[in-house]
Amino acid sequence: MTMNLSFITQNATAIAILASVLSLVYAYFQTKKILKNPRGDRKMNEISDAIQEGATAYMKRQYTVVAIIGIVIFAILYYVFNIWTAAGFAIGAIFSSVAGIIGMSIAVRTNIRCAQAAKRGLSSAFSIAFDGGSITGLMVAGLALLAVSGFYLVLEKVNPNNLQPLVALGFGGSLISVFARLGGGIFTKSADVGTDMVGKIEKGIPEDDPRNPGVIADLVGDNVGDDAGMAADLFETYVITAVAAIILGTLTFSSYKQVIYYPLLIGAVSIVASIIGTLFVELRGKSIMSALYQGLAVSIIFSLVGFYILTNYLFAQGLSGIPASNLFYSLTTGLFVTIGMVIITEYFTSKKFGPVRAIANASTTGHGTNVIAGLATSMKSTFAPILLISAATLISFNLAGLYGIAVAAMSMLSMSGIVIAIDAFGPITDNAGGIAEMAGLSEKVRKVTDPLDAVGNTTKAVTKAYAIGSAGLAALVLFAAYTQELIKNGKAANFSLSDPNVVVGLFIGGALPYFFGALAMEAVGKTSVSVVNEVRRQFREVKGIMTGEAKPEYGKAVDIVTKSAIRQMIVPALIPVAAPIIVGFGLGAKAFGGLLVGSIITGLFVAISMTTGGAAWDNTKKYIEEGNLGGKGSFAHQAAVTGDTVGDPYKDTAGPAINPMIKVLNIVALLIASFLV
Amino acid sequence: MTMNLSFITQNATAIAILASVLSLVYAYFQTKKILKNPRGDRKMNEISDAIQEGATAYMKRQYTVVAIIGIVIFAILYYVFNIWTAAGFAIGAIFSSVAGIIGMSIAVRTNIRCAQAAKRGLSSAFSIAFDGGSITGLMVAGLALLAVSGFYLVLEKVNPNNLQPLVALGFGGSLISVFARLGGGIFTKSADVGTDMVGKIEKGIPEDDPRNPGVIADLVGDNVGDDAGMAADLFETYVITAVAAIILGTLTFSSYKQVIYYPLLIGAVSIVASIIGTLFVELRGKSIMSALYQGLAVSIIFSLVGFYILTNYLFAQGLSGIPASNLFYSLTTGLFVTIGMVIITEYFTSKKFGPVRAIANASTTGHGTNVIAGLATSMKSTFAPILLISAATLISFNLAGLYGIAVAAMSMLSMSGIVIAIDAFGPITDNAGGIAEMAGLSEKVRKVTDPLDAVGNTTKAVTKAYAIGSAGLAALVLFAAYTQELIKNGKAANFSLSDPNVVVGLFIGGALPYFFGALAMEAVGKTSVSVVNEVRRQFREVKGIMTGEAKPEYGKAVDIVTKSAIRQMIVPALIPVAAPIIVGFGLGAKAFGGLLVGSIITGLFVAISMTTGGAAWDNTKKYIEEGNLGGKGSFAHQAAVTGDTVGDPYKDTAGPAINPMIKVLNIVALLIASFLV
Repeated sequence: MTMNLSFITQNATAIAILASVLSLVYAYFQTKKILKNPRGDRKMNEISDAIQEGATAYMKRQYTVVAIIGIVIFAILYYVFNIWTAAGFAIGAIFSSVAGIIGMSIAVRTNIRCAQAAKRGLSSAFSIAFDGGSITGLMVAGLALLAVSGFYLVLEKVNPNNLQPLVALGFGGSLISVFARLGGGIFTKSADVGTDMVGKIEKGIPEDDPRNPGVIADLVGDNVGDDAGMAADLFETYVITAVAAIILGTLTFSSYKQVIYYPLLIGAVSIVASIIGTLFVELRGKSIMSALYQGLAVSIIFSLVGFYILTNYLFAQGLSGIPASNLFYSLTTGLFVTIGMVIITEYFTSKKFGPVRAIANASTTGHGTNVIAGLATSMKSTFAPILLISAATLISFNLAGLYGIAVAAMSMLSMSGIVIAIDAFGPITDNAGGIAEMAGLSEKVRKVTDPLDAVGNTTKAVTKAYAIGSAGLAALVLFAAYTQELIKNGKAANFSLSDPNVVVGLFIGGALPYFFGALAMEAVGKTSVSVVNEVRRQFREVKGIMTGEAKPEYGKAVDIVTKSAIRQMIVPALIPVAAPIIVGFGLGAKAFGGLLVGSIITGLFVAISMTTGGAAWDNTKKYIEEGNLGGKGSFAHQAAVTGDTVGDPYKDTAGPAINPMIKVLNIVALLIASFLV
Repeated sequence: MTMNLSFITQNATAIAILASVLSLVYAYFQTKKILKNPRGDRKMNEISDAIQEGATAYMKRQYTVVAIIGIVIFAILYYVFNIWTAAGFAIGAIFSSVAGIIGMSIAVRTNIRCAQAAKRGLSSAFSIAFDGGSITGLMVAGLALLAVSGFYLVLEKVNPNNLQPLVALGFGGSLISVFARLGGGIFTKSADVGTDMVGKIEKGIPEDDPRNPGVIADLVGDNVGDDAGMAADLFETYVITAVAAIILGTLTFSSYKQVIYYPLLIGAVSIVASIIGTLFVELRGKSIMSALYQGLAVSIIFSLVGFYILTNYLFAQGLSGIPASNLFYSLTTGLFVTIGMVIITEYFTSKKFGPVRAIANASTTGHGTNVIAGLATSMKSTFAPILLISAATLISFNLAGLYGIAVAAMSMLSMSGIVIAIDAFGPITDNAGGIAEMAGLSEKVRKVTDPLDAVGNTTKAVTKAYAIGSAGLAALVLFAAYTQELIKNGKAANFSLSDPNVVVGLFIGGALPYFFGALAMEAVGKTSVSVVNEVRRQFREVKGIMTGEAKPEYGKAVDIVTKSAIRQMIVPALIPVAAPIIVGFGLGAKAFGGLLVGSIITGLFVAISMTTGGAAWDNTKKYIEEGNLGGKGSFAHQAAVTGDTVGDPYKDTAGPAINPMIKVLNIVALLIASFLV
């Protein structure tokens, strides 16, 4: 049954492109606004320049390596498929790289201005930091929607019945994200861990002390990891979710053109709602957290209104028997998952609640009990999110079938703009604090940036939980699309748990996040040992560092981390590309299906436990530093520093990188589906 | 097709009972032999009595609580099913308790004699310790085979067509094991962690120093955790595997009586082979490890010969088209998994290889990098075992279908006798060393017990990996039996990964090992904080402890740990009973099927990573204590002690308890299968 297409449907792609351009324009003007703010004194400029230089040098090297790998894959795709598929991959890869590079560029420029603004007080600093964050947020959402809708617009004209290039677009985005997350994650945490272990624990000097030879590397890390890595990651999640929803919609409801436009228009609605939401983020006597959540709440409300109108308009006659209201409720479910993930993560990572307090108490008896309590919390923190994701899956499936799950995931992801804005202000204030400390600004400035940074810790954890939760849904949708694709090709798609081949696939798939996570942790471990040795060497050999008479050789530390991070990101990042090909052609389609789902299952647990647990450790340290249980320098504080160190690669390297990894796995599956027996 | 039953088939149950009695008789004479050895001086006797008293008091309390829960479940089973099912549960529970209690009793009696023998040198101490271990080993295998074959003999007469009481037998065994593993695990590790943290780290006194108020509790813990807990655990795994193989055989090949006797006779063959194997364990100039593995190798060879004869005799006409050789190869596959698990675990946990060395190197830069490296190793160590289990699953499935997997698991488990013997000598020497230290025996004695203890650390890890690997196979067999049971009852048993209900079941099932593991870790964390506080209090309040003028109040520490361990084992132990009932009746059969498999998947990863990682941490500490990288008291050593502390609840509480937990889940499923829609 073909339906009479309405105005919106006919122009849906154009509307989506318009919304993404709006988003980019907003980001452009916000950037101009930020750049007008003063950069502070000479000392601050020097430091900021060093950070910017280090970050730019790292990004150049990272993307050079990635480009080489990308070109090889481009050639393979061109050879195996066609130019459109290869082009899709290239566009996804390039846009993802752009998202990462802009995320980093905005951050390094905002940091110093935030430090300067902090001299004027909390409100000014908060305002600049949040503006900086909102640029990244809306830029990521805008680029993602632009990539999908723009490329679809072209494809529609060229070859409307072959959506494979769209899959390749997702592949390009995901693959680059794995590299960005891993490379940036290894960089930031090796520098952080290595610098802290000598500075804080051995030398007893504060964080970001200019005497520490690793401190610039540490500050560079925040920008290439927390900013660039995160931007690439959420870009990828957004693109994949939209692509998966479109593909699944086409495969299951081929006669309804709306199923293609619906995900794009959901994205368009939310971009507008996110822009409105950012306007509502104001401190004015509220707590920092409340100010941020107010923006989120406003975005959600405006999105809901927009979704309601959109859904009723687009599906006035329903979707093959599914009433419009069911689709709207699916979208609502997606938003509820977002809210639920925020609340759960906040509970497990905020200094106000039981879990962090329990780890803090365990710190009073030493390093060992701190780590045990932290590991227990990290494992425990997976339970509620899994129940939430499970409930959302069942509810949206019962409302509107597999497509219901797809649009729920899209609705969740459509909030990326505002969610990233709330996240990205954190690393900006963290870096601003670092610049303030290094430039010897008054204690007052740190008093402004510290609470902002602490809130940023929780919002960063929230964003990761959000990304991983949505990734879980998106990966399920990809798997559903994969089975539909098999059915379309006339192949059996019954993956029964009673079949040992499927179970073995689940086992091997389950092993991938563990293996990948282990390599990522190992990379941080190895690299931070090099940093420790280098920092120790400088303290030993460069006379006068501790008295402030001599300047440490910051560049050497940056260089060591750069080389090591790039060398060590390559092998793990290729696991999700190689594994499906090996298992698919080696063990056959049954095991292959199991592989995909297996990776989603353990992937969710490994990722959630790592990101939430890591943030809980971090805030435990902050809680003790506030003067609780002995405060800074106490025995409990030393133990908390150890916990924080362990949590670092958990939350910023291995944990978040699992998110793009499971999606690469599943999207490679979609690409090679037609070759499998 | 009914076949002409041969002599062995007709008397199979009797033969199995005979073999198990042989095993118990062997254990009895070995015990008599050990008890003839001298107990040493008055001081040693005092200490040993205190340990025995503490262990007995704990076990009494533990089994009192367990008995109450057992009686409630007995009543429920009687009410819901019938007296035979309830009786099966009771027999399983009682036998499991007996295995645990005897395991503990043998250990506390052997420890002191081993300490005394150590005065005469390595060979004497080794010989007594291994004899002690072999008693537990053959007693566990004997009791398990006796329970299954004896109960089956009765059932066969009473009601040959209803095997449900046999399932209940497995349920009783598993449930008690969860309690024993958890309770004993929480006890041993809280005492260990708490005692070490004050003694080693704060006071700088050696392990097992009589001045430490927690030292008796620590020694009691080895007996109730490593000995009693392990014995109950392997008893359960053995019983469950045999029951699952019998049930699955009956469901898939109902006209072949041999499928019931085959698992029992495999057990009988291996008991004889294990007894022969123990005779070949002799030090005579070999390394300790080689002496132990020689026994294992001999047992495996004799088993293979026996299996070959048995299989060809029993299945001379094949099994419904499957030739006897295929069944024999399945058994061989099971033995290869045993060998493979030994090699892999040895690689990851022995001081001789890369992983432990890498953690040791990471220790030189501090607590944080030690823990990061250890966590990376623990995650990485899951990969090879999973591939091994996957390969074994596919090979045995292709050889002889689901029944092939079942008999491969049974062949693996049939080696329990010798495997436990190789394991249980470890905690005996550990305790002997503790008694020597406390009794002020010469340094020479410790020089004898220490290397034995270090080897014991690796063999303990090997046994756990073996138990978990076999548990994975056994759980798969249980799941297969569950689906066959559904089919028999005329219910749909298609658990497709394309069905979101199944996937949600996988998610929730996957969450259970995480949640359960978190609670177990938390329990150790909390309890060890109480121990730390108590030990600190005594050091502070009881004047003259450090100078040796006053005796610490050992009993108080034992008491605190006992109460806390028992209180905290109850809730997590009931999770695997409650979860399947809630999900089964709440979300339906599809999600339920997913739940079972989901728990096996994440359960394997959580359990293997924890047990192997924990042992690697432990041996890293031992490696440094041998004088490497600075040796005892160095910065690296302090970091290694932290890693060891973290590894303690990993390897001895949470990790191994997951093994019986996933089996309780799957066996409860078999019990309630007939009630599910």
